[in-house]
Amino acid sequence: MKTPDGGEGPPPLVYNPPMVGEFQLIEWIRSRRAPRGGIVVDIGDDLAALRWDGADLLLVGVDQVLDGVHFDSAVHLPEAIGAKVMNRNLSDCAAMACLPAAAVVTVALPRTAGLDYAKALDAGLRKAGDAFDCPIIGGDTASWDGKLLLTVTILGRSAGVAPIPRGGAKAGDGIFVTGALGGSLLGRHMTFRPRVLEARAMAAIAPISAMIDLSDGLSRDVGHIADQSGVAALIEADAVPIHADARESERRDGQSPLHHALHDGEDHELLFTAPATFAAALAPWAQPIGRIEAGSGVFLVDADGRRAPLAPLGWQHGIGP
Amino acid sequence: MKTPDGGEGPPPLVYNPPMVGEFQLIEWIRSRRAPRGGIVVDIGDDLAALRWDGADLLLVGVDQVLDGVHFDSAVHLPEAIGAKVMNRNLSDCAAMACLPAAAVVTVALPRTAGLDYAKALDAGLRKAGDAFDCPIIGGDTASWDGKLLLTVTILGRSAGVAPIPRGGAKAGDGIFVTGALGGSLLGRHMTFRPRVLEARAMAAIAPISAMIDLSDGLSRDVGHIADQSGVAALIEADAVPIHADARESERRDGQSPLHHALHDGEDHELLFTAPATFAAALAPWAQPIGRIEAGSGVFLVDADGRRAPLAPLGWQHGIGP
Repeated sequence: MKTPDGGEGPPPLVYNPPMVGEFQLIEWIRSRRAPRGGIVVDIGDDLAALRWDGADLLLVGVDQVLDGVHFDSAVHLPEAIGAKVMNRNLSDCAAMACLPAAAVVTVALPRTAGLDYAKALDAGLRKAGDAFDCPIIGGDTASWDGKLLLTVTILGRSAGVAPIPRGGAKAGDGIFVTGALGGSLLGRHMTFRPRVLEARAMAAIAPISAMIDLSDGLSRDVGHIADQSGVAALIEADAVPIHADARESERRDGQSPLHHALHDGEDHELLFTAPATFAAALAPWAQPIGRIEAGSGVFLVDADGRRAPLAPLGWQHGIGP
Repeated sequence: MKTPDGGEGPPPLVYNPPMVGEFQLIEWIRSRRAPRGGIVVDIGDDLAALRWDGADLLLVGVDQVLDGVHFDSAVHLPEAIGAKVMNRNLSDCAAMACLPAAAVVTVALPRTAGLDYAKALDAGLRKAGDAFDCPIIGGDTASWDGKLLLTVTILGRSAGVAPIPRGGAKAGDGIFVTGALGGSLLGRHMTFRPRVLEARAMAAIAPISAMIDLSDGLSRDVGHIADQSGVAALIEADAVPIHADARESERRDGQSPLHHALHDGEDHELLFTAPATFAAALAPWAQPIGRIEAGSGVFLVDADGRRAPLAPLGWQHGIGP
């Protein structure tokens, strides 16, 4: 690769590359964002700066999406890709019952992608954030001889609700889920709506003891709650809500709808535990699918009350077109 | 690609893949981190949670490093790669004169990389963070059919020092730099030490009006200060400190050492402006290299006082082995 100076230097590493249009992109992004109260230094400096109310716990986490893993750039539009990575992070806020406060973003763009493609990614990111009043206050873009990869780091504030961990489930709790499961790969994994408001509403009326959002599949994610809580989780097979997409998935691969509901990933519904007596109060948002007992492990209970270990399979999928 | 169920589904997208060893890796990372005061929910939940002193502004930003752009995985050791991405973010803290508080990390690993490689990346990240009391409190790892990419999002706290923006330079200010420049590509770009403590010390004794860390090259980064401040920046050619690596670079490509000092990237020294009368007070950490005037643009001033526009070239380099 020729350097600007005409020299030749193997290996042809290129670094700090203001990609074609990077500075224009930053300018464009900045122009799209209205100043907001609380932001002291906005996007475009070395770091952004916020005022933070010390009464609020600060929650923080990061999720990435990778081309060929979480989306397929040959199939999915850039707006949908941008929205997905933001929504995954908003769903993490939901799982802690916090309110989104702000986000920072990275984009690694293939060199073949142009400024319009980057703007469309940003539009998807921003629209998803705006739906939950979560502005993008910083970021880093670069182009490379690699595939598309985006990250979002989200900041949340407790806003009067103690963060709900994975490890708080207790024997006697019920296990609840906020929606029907399975077959997300058919399209819902790109279009789900994070359960931020539902989490806040439920946490206000019930002592939720543990919560997680379903990204790795029910069988695996309920295992995270059981393991981190030091308890056993029992899922009632007949109680698991089956999404219509799980039935369509059965038509495609022959696996039962229940199998899809138990093991498919990226439902992004909330899975949580709370005293079973709160089932009626929680009914507007969630339904019971099992119970917590002393012990360890995850079990599936059939209609006759027989229990069998439920192994986590939700870790690898072929995606149909 | 075969699914676990034996089905075949083109395209062979794989998502939410607990990579070989991912859960073991998370466990290993968790085991390496002592609990710290202020962290309410640590790594391993949907989000981490921190207590935040409302007297502190919260600073946040993110930087990514990409294989073949910011490092070469065929040349650089994983510990050094992990250290670099953390140090880039710590250097952003330095540029705002804030104290690092915590970080979250993403790693996109090629499928060919194993658990030991991931551990070495983490060790480099952690060692660099530990040097500035900056724990890693969350992250996301995934493996893919792509190249290595890491991100660090850093949280900083103002801790009694107002964040120093890029846009505060005023006519009459001097321009200062904390170290010698040029030729970072020969190796320093992987091993620089972030000027966090220097920034705090300088901010305590001088009214620093604008600051940036030199990542894109002096000519480009001083342009960021000039543009965002609405002023002109004049660099005295004879005053620019030249690193020995810039002279070695001249031997390799024939470009003058001054050219390298002005245009090479990733020095990660601090470039800042302050009233020229503070030069003596700042001398332990920084030296003057120019001045701010009313107007706009960036100029190089020669020994005879003649000024010429200084165009930013620090945007693309061939890296020698």
